[in-house]
Amino acid sequence: MKIPVGIVGFRGYSGAELIAYLTRHPHVEPVLLEHRDVEDRPRPLHTKGAKTLACTAESVRSEGLVAVFLATPHDASMEMAPWILDAGAKVIDLAAAFRLGTTENYKRWYKEDHTAPVLLKEAVYSVPEFHRDKARGARLIANPGCYPTAANLAIKPLIAAGAIEREHGIVCDAKSGVSGAGRKPSLKTSFCEVTENFSAYSILDHRHVPEVLQNSELEESEFSFTAQLIPIDRGILETIYFRASTNISSADDLLAIYQKQYDGEPFVRLYPPGQVPDLHSVNHTNFCDIGFKFDPKTRRTVVVSCIDNLGKGAAGQAVQNMNLVLGFDEIAGLL
Amino acid sequence: MKIPVGIVGFRGYSGAELIAYLTRHPHVEPVLLEHRDVEDRPRPLHTKGAKTLACTAESVRSEGLVAVFLATPHDASMEMAPWILDAGAKVIDLAAAFRLGTTENYKRWYKEDHTAPVLLKEAVYSVPEFHRDKARGARLIANPGCYPTAANLAIKPLIAAGAIEREHGIVCDAKSGVSGAGRKPSLKTSFCEVTENFSAYSILDHRHVPEVLQNSELEESEFSFTAQLIPIDRGILETIYFRASTNISSADDLLAIYQKQYDGEPFVRLYPPGQVPDLHSVNHTNFCDIGFKFDPKTRRTVVVSCIDNLGKGAAGQAVQNMNLVLGFDEIAGLL
Amino acid sequence: MKIPVGIVGFRGYSGAELIAYLTRHPHVEPVLLEHRDVEDRPRPLHTKGAKTLACTAESVRSEGLVAVFLATPHDASMEMAPWILDAGAKVIDLAAAFRLGTTENYKRWYKEDHTAPVLLKEAVYSVPEFHRDKARGARLIANPGCYPTAANLAIKPLIAAGAIEREHGIVCDAKSGVSGAGRKPSLKTSFCEVTENFSAYSILDHRHVPEVLQNSELEESEFSFTAQLIPIDRGILETIYFRASTNISSADDLLAIYQKQYDGEPFVRLYPPGQVPDLHSVNHTNFCDIGFKFDPKTRRTVVVSCIDNLGKGAAGQAVQNMNLVLGFDEIAGLL
Amino acid sequence: MKIPVGIVGFRGYSGAELIAYLTRHPHVEPVLLEHRDVEDRPRPLHTKGAKTLACTAESVRSEGLVAVFLATPHDASMEMAPWILDAGAKVIDLAAAFRLGTTENYKRWYKEDHTAPVLLKEAVYSVPEFHRDKARGARLIANPGCYPTAANLAIKPLIAAGAIEREHGIVCDAKSGVSGAGRKPSLKTSFCEVTENFSAYSILDHRHVPEVLQNSELEESEFSFTAQLIPIDRGILETIYFRASTNISSADDLLAIYQKQYDGEPFVRLYPPGQVPDLHSVNHTNFCDIGFKFDPKTRRTVVVSCIDNLGKGAAGQAVQNMNLVLGFDEIAGLL
Repeated sequence: MKIPVGIVGFRGYSGAELIAYLTRHPHVEPVLLEHRDVEDRPRPLHTKGAKTLACTAESVRSEGLVAVFLATPHDASMEMAPWILDAGAKVIDLAAAFRLGTTENYKRWYKEDHTAPVLLKEAVYSVPEFHRDKARGARLIANPGCYPTAANLAIKPLIAAGAIEREHGIVCDAKSGVSGAGRKPSLKTSFCEVTENFSAYSILDHRHVPEVLQNSELEESEFSFTAQLIPIDRGILETIYFRASTNISSADDLLAIYQKQYDGEPFVRLYPPGQVPDLHSVNHTNFCDIGFKFDPKTRRTVVVSCIDNLGKGAAGQAVQNMNLVLGFDEIAGLL
Repeated sequence: MKIPVGIVGFRGYSGAELIAYLTRHPHVEPVLLEHRDVEDRPRPLHTKGAKTLACTAESVRSEGLVAVFLATPHDASMEMAPWILDAGAKVIDLAAAFRLGTTENYKRWYKEDHTAPVLLKEAVYSVPEFHRDKARGARLIANPGCYPTAANLAIKPLIAAGAIEREHGIVCDAKSGVSGAGRKPSLKTSFCEVTENFSAYSILDHRHVPEVLQNSELEESEFSFTAQLIPIDRGILETIYFRASTNISSADDLLAIYQKQYDGEPFVRLYPPGQVPDLHSVNHTNFCDIGFKFDPKTRRTVVVSCIDNLGKGAAGQAVQNMNLVLGFDEIAGLL
Repeated sequence: MKIPVGIVGFRGYSGAELIAYLTRHPHVEPVLLEHRDVEDRPRPLHTKGAKTLACTAESVRSEGLVAVFLATPHDASMEMAPWILDAGAKVIDLAAAFRLGTTENYKRWYKEDHTAPVLLKEAVYSVPEFHRDKARGARLIANPGCYPTAANLAIKPLIAAGAIEREHGIVCDAKSGVSGAGRKPSLKTSFCEVTENFSAYSILDHRHVPEVLQNSELEESEFSFTAQLIPIDRGILETIYFRASTNISSADDLLAIYQKQYDGEPFVRLYPPGQVPDLHSVNHTNFCDIGFKFDPKTRRTVVVSCIDNLGKGAAGQAVQNMNLVLGFDEIAGLL
Repeated sequence: MKIPVGIVGFRGYSGAELIAYLTRHPHVEPVLLEHRDVEDRPRPLHTKGAKTLACTAESVRSEGLVAVFLATPHDASMEMAPWILDAGAKVIDLAAAFRLGTTENYKRWYKEDHTAPVLLKEAVYSVPEFHRDKARGARLIANPGCYPTAANLAIKPLIAAGAIEREHGIVCDAKSGVSGAGRKPSLKTSFCEVTENFSAYSILDHRHVPEVLQNSELEESEFSFTAQLIPIDRGILETIYFRASTNISSADDLLAIYQKQYDGEPFVRLYPPGQVPDLHSVNHTNFCDIGFKFDPKTRRTVVVSCIDNLGKGAAGQAVQNMNLVLGFDEIAGLL
């Protein structure tokens, strides 16, 4: 028999993707929890037929939900996480409410006070490839942002191995499909404003930057990040530039660092040097695909990192984290 | 020196297209009139630099506006047309406020009472190819809807010539780019809902149907119309099906009817029998392109009629009407 | 252990979709058979890792292939089907080689002689919802075309029930994503020619018309069909117009006919009267979704029928047919 | 009376754009010159009606063509430029045949011998904003590549002013619409391969790199360039990263350098610091729009430079160069 897990925010794109993943999952089944304020928004198509309840502590208890996914705005996550945990469910938060470690950092980037500081300390930020041991014992998972997931998977191993001349800076030019901006209608995401266009936003001050700094252990001065909107539904491609250290003399040296980190990882795929992924490689999957080009004469390096922003960048990674938290096989429901 | 004309609703797609047409016009220049409620909406890019005033009778008088375009919702048009006319300007209404002839008809299709019934009588509905004589003397022009413009130009001459077996019905399968739905954000026109999709709406009861019935002189039972959304910015293509009358025995017979109607028309282009236009043929123009396929054995006929919904379907035709109203060359600013 | 089945033409879009379906299938696994002439074309991404052999009778025998899918041009299918059958495998042909029943009909629509007339007689044309009994015993399946699948599922039950006034004609206005045109590069399917466009082709004489006539038992004079290209990857939506017979007095009468035909069918979904599907409802599935609008005053009826052209319109239906031919559960690998 | 100028390669996207620009030009009119090999390719729509001749020296002489545009592959340009010049016309080459200054450089990047080395010396590479004085007297113009135009306009003034710490490198992350790849069908530019995708190519070794190095006077080791394909028809957006020099302490310092260079330039538009253009700002124009973000604490700088790849990136700039060569007002036909 399948174990029930809850989804709050199931009318959004990440929520709908969670339903898709969980419906295919061998051990759990999704229960939809209606959150205040958005009840009149139409549901995405494939939520039809799923069990739907009010999002209350009573629902969590009576259904025996062992875990609840929060695919909600960050303030809603801060408000709900405490009483959902009290009701006995683990929480996997897809919002940014518990990602930034300290209340100071949260206030700097999200411009408001954190209302659950104790939980902020307890929360485990988990890219499973880096943090699976801590995630296994966690009650509250801070599921990483989409942009930082692609960036950290591409650069953290290289930084840890001293393979990058950090004083010259690392550039991360990021591009995302429109679903990353959520399902709430806005002029910015209206069809006619996006089609046949391409635009940059949040240059150098995107809220996802601190997630890269704290995980890859970089200074802000060392990391230049631009987010950009592609006229497509889904997918993130990041083009990352740096100068390799003098101890790197060939593409194989870089590849070896990646292989040491990712051999055996089910969701990271490395490309042969000189080949890079595109979005068709990863969309509708939980993979992160990484390829790079290295110029041995000048040690200029360009890494391309691709994920589905709704897969490894949101719902897929959240299910991967749930598998860790609940003790399932980490790949259950994801391949 | 150029004569000033006003635009209300210039933040919308039709309004922006009006600015583009009028900026290139040899005899007039646009003045932007700020309408209540939408002042905080960002302007389309190419409105920068244009003169902007509050939309008041005082502005109309002090600027000496000889004509004002209303690219507004129909209730706003009903409210404004009377006092703009009083202030001395001609009015070209791109909304549906003055298109339907009678208050009864208006109420049936727009579900509300008409608040300017005297003007409704006075207004001249003008597809210039059919109504240019009446348009020349008009104070108030009801600029036709986008779908009816493409439909009436394709079928009215054939119906008038008795070339269609009306008892078998005329089918008009219409497809439009998303700009036809306006610039106000909505879930229905959000990028992720539209891209990689195609959807039908208002089947058999679209508000543009009565404009076809009254102009082409058809009964409702004779005309089946479906509107559909293409994942593109602009353009309308209508595929129109009927059985030709027994007096039509070849494609040339049909072509002759069209040629008789449209020879010398600057904005209607006919294709050789068997060839049909696509949207790249007409976008960013004021043309209506018409082609057809005729099967002599069964007299089944398929006509394809294409316009730019923001050109001949809105702003282009509105400028063509302005040219008539103000006594300019009908093609001024349009080629 | 899984049973091997072959795919010829796996570098095309239907072939790639077959691989995707068969990789998820509980009872079979795909073997890729290299066909002459296209070996240098790059493979779609998800064919990596699959076993690949030359397409020869020897390969069929040595691998013990129980069935072979032909996702090839129709002349290649005519050439290969005989010796693949001789080698002991069943054949499911996704091309048009065996769809049209007689050599005369084939020659009329495909402008060439049929080179395997005996097999043409033997082949079973199978939309499983209509022909599953004959399909179960077949050696050679003619998998239906994409457009006819959506059309026949929508109109055949109504025609059989006498619910349509055929003398007024049935209009089928069909729209397809670009993958329906195949993967071979051409100007017609180049990105810049398709994007922000919409175009009609093969008006009244599309090669898929005879598949509708012979299955729904219509005369050519009764059926008007236009194919059109939507700027999207995949999906077919057909808008179908007719006048219902006098024995139909309500939407429920029509719905009852559909329900009688399709109750219990796993891959046909009916919508409540007045509601219609869009392409997001069916893409990446084997479903055919059907909705309609009925005007009781005039009996004008509009049916909307949607499929994924690569799913129920090609690979999905082919796997459904394979399940019948090989005696598996009809839904295996398809939900 | 208008002066005739020739266009070779008018069936391509740049050629079609040239026709559009020249048809609106006050002083010249286009004559289409049929080039070998592509005569059966269909014409873009708006070439209909234009005068068409064989591309021969006789045509150049008999028509009295004062200038000929070569919108051809670079080997065709090398072959034709000599005899067109001999026939008395100026040549504006939109290909890369005469851009790289030396035969050695040409051979390194284009992998073949240059067959017109004397003309290579004579040719004037002209971004008019930088080279208009030399262009005025030229017989043969090497019209710049699309990517280098956007890049040089953004960085050359800053490099000349010593505003960039070059030892840390300059990153240029470039994105282009698909028309930049030309009109010849290929799998890479097929609709289904491009839509809902985003891909990088020619990382660090794109043929346009040397045009940036030689014009902005950079070493290859200082400049990292990646080209990427956006699923849109037209437009180039380049996101450029560097650390500003210590003599730059505010965004206004950078703006002042740009203003000094571009004040009075009709086709370069500067944005207020912190604001950046998108592709809707420039498409269907000859503008280059430049905006930037500067972080005073770390001097990290991000510049966004946008052009229409068929406008300022090809046909627009070519017409601007023709205006210089023939002594017309530089903006004639371009606003």
